[in-house]
Amino acid sequence: MTGSSAIDIEKRRDGQRHALADSVAVEEPLEIRLGFTTPDGRAVRSISITMRTPGNDEELAAGFLHGESIIRERADIASIEKCGPPAADSGNHNVIRVELGANVAVDLGKLERHFYTTSSCGVCGKTSMDALRVVGIEALADHKGTFSERLLLSLPDKLRAAQRTFDETGGLHAAGAFDRDGEFVAVMEDVGRHNAVDKVIGRLLLDDRLPAPDLGLLVSGRASFELVQKTLVAGIPLIAAVSAPSSLAVDLAREFNMTLLGSLRDPSFNVYAGESRLCP
Amino acid sequence: MTGSSAIDIEKRRDGQRHALADSVAVEEPLEIRLGFTTPDGRAVRSISITMRTPGNDEELAAGFLHGESIIRERADIASIEKCGPPAADSGNHNVIRVELGANVAVDLGKLERHFYTTSSCGVCGKTSMDALRVVGIEALADHKGTFSERLLLSLPDKLRAAQRTFDETGGLHAAGAFDRDGEFVAVMEDVGRHNAVDKVIGRLLLDDRLPAPDLGLLVSGRASFELVQKTLVAGIPLIAAVSAPSSLAVDLAREFNMTLLGSLRDPSFNVYAGESRLCP
Repeated sequence: MTGSSAIDIEKRRDGQRHALADSVAVEEPLEIRLGFTTPDGRAVRSISITMRTPGNDEELAAGFLHGESIIRERADIASIEKCGPPAADSGNHNVIRVELGANVAVDLGKLERHFYTTSSCGVCGKTSMDALRVVGIEALADHKGTFSERLLLSLPDKLRAAQRTFDETGGLHAAGAFDRDGEFVAVMEDVGRHNAVDKVIGRLLLDDRLPAPDLGLLVSGRASFELVQKTLVAGIPLIAAVSAPSSLAVDLAREFNMTLLGSLRDPSFNVYAGESRLCP
Repeated sequence: MTGSSAIDIEKRRDGQRHALADSVAVEEPLEIRLGFTTPDGRAVRSISITMRTPGNDEELAAGFLHGESIIRERADIASIEKCGPPAADSGNHNVIRVELGANVAVDLGKLERHFYTTSSCGVCGKTSMDALRVVGIEALADHKGTFSERLLLSLPDKLRAAQRTFDETGGLHAAGAFDRDGEFVAVMEDVGRHNAVDKVIGRLLLDDRLPAPDLGLLVSGRASFELVQKTLVAGIPLIAAVSAPSSLAVDLAREFNMTLLGSLRDPSFNVYAGESRLCP
């Protein structure tokens, strides 16, 4: 259940060969199965297979379901359990089953659809944003001056320090939710940046902390539309990225009154949307 | 149709605010529709929506279909055309239609399945590798000493120089196919690293250059299972990454006799698999 795997490789430098004991980030598929009530009784459906770094799979499943607007709160989940035997090679459980509460309604048509790719976008960005409104997502409320610029600048170093596996493998994305005092309340790593965000949001959901208007989210890489969308659905008003955002990420943040920061590297950062939440 | 978009933002540094004209990487959805022959006549099915940077959409669609083993060669494609009106906001066409030749058989069951996520993996890595064999992918042939270490070390700088949009936006992944003389024959950029690889492989397919046992592929970031799989299906025997590979990427390369290099940064690189293809 560790995020890295030991491996024997060869390093080449200046024509010389050196045997090397290296560590690589573990990547294995996770199948998420959903148990829910239908008019004909209980049903189980496989709804996603994602390549992820094993560990915090319960959080990953909960966060994924929340980002897809299949669940809204902790009470929607009756149980989350690993199922089946572990994979022969690695010993990891690569199937997880989430049972929803008896009275949680599931949109079967949505489950049928081409899940992963259509879930985060429509045929144009505008459609996607309309789709968010359809599931009841509204522009976030104003809270002026709630995040300190000085504290924000200190976050990337703290996130990096909390990334245990990255230093070994150089191969993992990280995401972390932080409070207004600049303290991280959840930090997760994964080979997939969307998984790292799902794990953080899933942890908050399992702790019954969503929506989280008092928190911000920091991601180690770039801010895509999908990551901003997950943050919005979690009711987290601020997302900061160490690298740059995409055009559609900026559009989404501006449309829903979120704060989007990029190129966050002491001593500066860029404000793409929602500057009113910042204070010195 | 450019990969970057101009935007007015604010930079904050040491408590000071500076208005800034910035460029962000464009991210918009592309829907791929597939036209094909069924026992009842021609059919059209929407098979994928992916968030991508507009440009080289024909290559992206062709490379995606090749990576999914829906097409094998250029002759399988009757036509590729943008369809519908352009998006109102951006002017980009976000729907593309690929018509397959009349005698190209399509596995409808595969199209029904949960496309994007299941296509690149089974429930465990072993299943995925078996699945590759099922569609006729075999271990690659040996070609000893075909890629020069000295030339390989020169590639990251060349790839970066060929990345026009990255310098503006800091937000794009790149992939490039190179020959044994260390010259790039195709370089593509995208907000999604899998899209950049699809675009490169799609370009090679449209040029009728697949399989390509004489080429290697360089990616600007990390090497995941999915990227190694796409490279394998294209019959490209070597993949090199500027950053680290994942565990399953290494397993796949070793299983199918590919060469996998990581941390490729002059003056050194790591050899994870297939060292016999290297020469000084």
